[in-house]
Order: sequence, then C-alpha cells, then structure tokens
Amino acid sequence: MKKNLPRSTAEAERIVLGIDPGSLITGFGLVAVGRDGPRLLDCGTIVNRSTVPMAERLRVIYEGLCETVGRWHPSEAAVESAFYGKNVQSALKLGQARGVAILAAVNAGIIPAEYAPREVKLAVVGRGNASKEQVQFMVKTLLRTRSRSMMLDASDALAVALCHARRRDDHRPKRHRDWGAFVAAHPELVRP
Amino acid sequence: MKKNLPRSTAEAERIVLGIDPGSLITGFGLVAVGRDGPRLLDCGTIVNRSTVPMAERLRVIYEGLCETVGRWHPSEAAVESAFYGKNVQSALKLGQARGVAILAAVNAGIIPAEYAPREVKLAVVGRGNASKEQVQFMVKTLLRTRSRSMMLDASDALAVALCHARRRDDHRPKRHRDWGAFVAAHPELVRP
Repeated sequence: MKKNLPRSTAEAERIVLGIDPGSLITGFGLVAVGRDGPRLLDCGTIVNRSTVPMAERLRVIYEGLCETVGRWHPSEAAVESAFYGKNVQSALKLGQARGVAILAAVNAGIIPAEYAPREVKLAVVGRGNASKEQVQFMVKTLLRTRSRSMMLDASDALAVALCHARRRDDHRPKRHRDWGAFVAAHPELVRP
Repeated sequence: MKKNLPRSTAEAERIVLGIDPGSLITGFGLVAVGRDGPRLLDCGTIVNRSTVPMAERLRVIYEGLCETVGRWHPSEAAVESAFYGKNVQSALKLGQARGVAILAAVNAGIIPAEYAPREVKLAVVGRGNASKEQVQFMVKTLLRTRSRSMMLDASDALAVALCHARRRDDHRPKRHRDWGAFVAAHPELVRP
C-alpha cells in the first residue's frame, strides 16, 4: 500500500535524533527513516565524571548534543520522558540534564517529542518491562548492525528514536486527502 | 576594619545575579555589591504560559537569562538549590528550568553557587521559615528601594543574590596573608 502512495523526498528520508538524558551519561542516537525502514546513522554517549560540578556537566551535555545536531541536522527529535524513581533529588538532577538536552534540540528549531520508557520498550521490543539488554538486541536487529561497542545508553537513545519513527508512522494524520484517495489506496476494502 | 583593607576595583564592585527558576515563572535579580553595601541594578520575571509546550518554555527562560547576562555581565551567580515538594514530576519540571538557567550562567563563564531556600531566608530575613512577603520586605529594605511592582519571584531571586553576596563575605578565605597582616588589621586584639 505504502509503495503506491507518492512521497516527497523529505518524507522518504527523515532523520530522527533520540536522546536518553542523564547527568552522568547521556545517550544519543540518530536514525534515518526511509522507504526501506530505519537505518543507523550515528550513536554514542556523552560521559561526565561525578567529581565534576553539575553546572559544568550540563555545559558538556549541551555542547555535545549541539555538536551532534550540527553534524546531522535531524528533522525530528525524541526524548525519554518519565522518571519512575521516588527520589525527588534524583528527579531534579535528571530534570536538569533533560532541560539542556531539550534546549539543544529546540535551538535547532526542533520541538522534541516525549515518550515514557514503557512506551519505548513496547514499541521496540513488544514488552513494556523489557531489560536494557533486550532493548539493545532489538535495536541492533532493527538497524541491522552488529556493533559490539554500543553502550546501553546509546541503544536506549536509538530505541527512543525508533519508537518515535514508528509512532509517527502509526499516528500519521490523514494520509489520504479524501475518501477517493483512501479508496484508491485500499482497493481490497471496497466491494466490487 | 574593612575600611582599612586595600581592595581592588573588581572586589569593590561585584555584580551578583540571583535566579529563582521555575517552568512558569523564573525570577532574576542583579545586585552590585560594593563598599557601601548592596545596590539594586535590575530585577524581573520571565513568564511562560502553561499552554506553551515545555520545550518552548525552556527556550524562553534560556534566552531571557542570556539576554540579562549579556546586558549586565555579572561576575557571580547564585541559584536556589533544593526542592522540598514530594512530587517527582514537579521536581523533574523544575529541574529542567534550573538546568537551562544554570546553562545561561555557565555559557557566560560563571559557575553558579547554590543555596537552599532556608539558607536564603536565614541570610536575608534571619528566619529560615520566613514568608515570601517577609523576604520581599527585607530585600526592599536592604536594597533601599520602594518599588511597588516587584513580583515575589523577582524579590526571591534578589534574596538569592543577597544571600550569595553575604555568604561570600562571611566565607571569604584568608583575608590576611599572614599573622602580621591580621595584627595590623586588628590592633584592638593585641595587648600593648
């Protein structure tokens, strides 16, 4: 069905940036989404030492992501949203890292989408309580890569990007301008 | 005693930026601290509507503070640190606002100091559980201003700046290079 629909070049190759922010390790992953499914462009981690003051860590995260955005020019971005811990101080720290991560995308003109960890796991593995290792296995399978050095934070970020790519497809609004276009695209749904 | 000590010009006029971050209202205040005590330079609020997406709000906070930093070139900055609520999601939101606020200072080469709300109130009002109105009254008294339009978030930010200015004075390390300099500065402590 999709093959019959005309697509613009921009639509044929979206570049999605996924971010898994953290005050110590921030994972990022870039996926190109075209007609042949998702393709791995880049992934990695921005690592901070715990001895470095928080203000300096935030600068490192922000500059690292700005550099990535500048290199790949993503058209969309997605960030893990929720925090399931109970510790308010940990949430505050994570919030700070998320704040500068979101800012790096916004400064490039992209409002990042947000997905809960459960939503990401469900989209990529099919199970909301999958482990990080299971997420990484599925990310590698979907992106057809055998990279052995991929860190779990990087594969988590790629999973967020893949989740966003898939959700955007699922929720793509009004692919058909009118019922005529819909019927033309779904001949099997029309009685002869 | 202080009058007898030689001071550099830079020390005679420090400019301290105080920030009270929030995802809806971020207060900021600038205080010049010289020999004659603190002096009000500027204060205000960066207001976001709750209908605006969080990513956009973060950009507004960041750009507003960057503009303020660019206008006044503060030499020091201070931010309210702790969050006493129990709601993890509120902490996450506040953290995001704090993250971009800290980043605005760090990008100008200033690592902001952090003070707990109780510490700020204690330094300005003398009571750790003072109300926002009491804080504003004392801020206005200390800065010799009668401004009627000052918002509580702006006076909170000024209080953070005043707290930092005072704490820096209290903790100023080794004002005297050696005992000779100390004795010269405190003749009343030496038996004839």
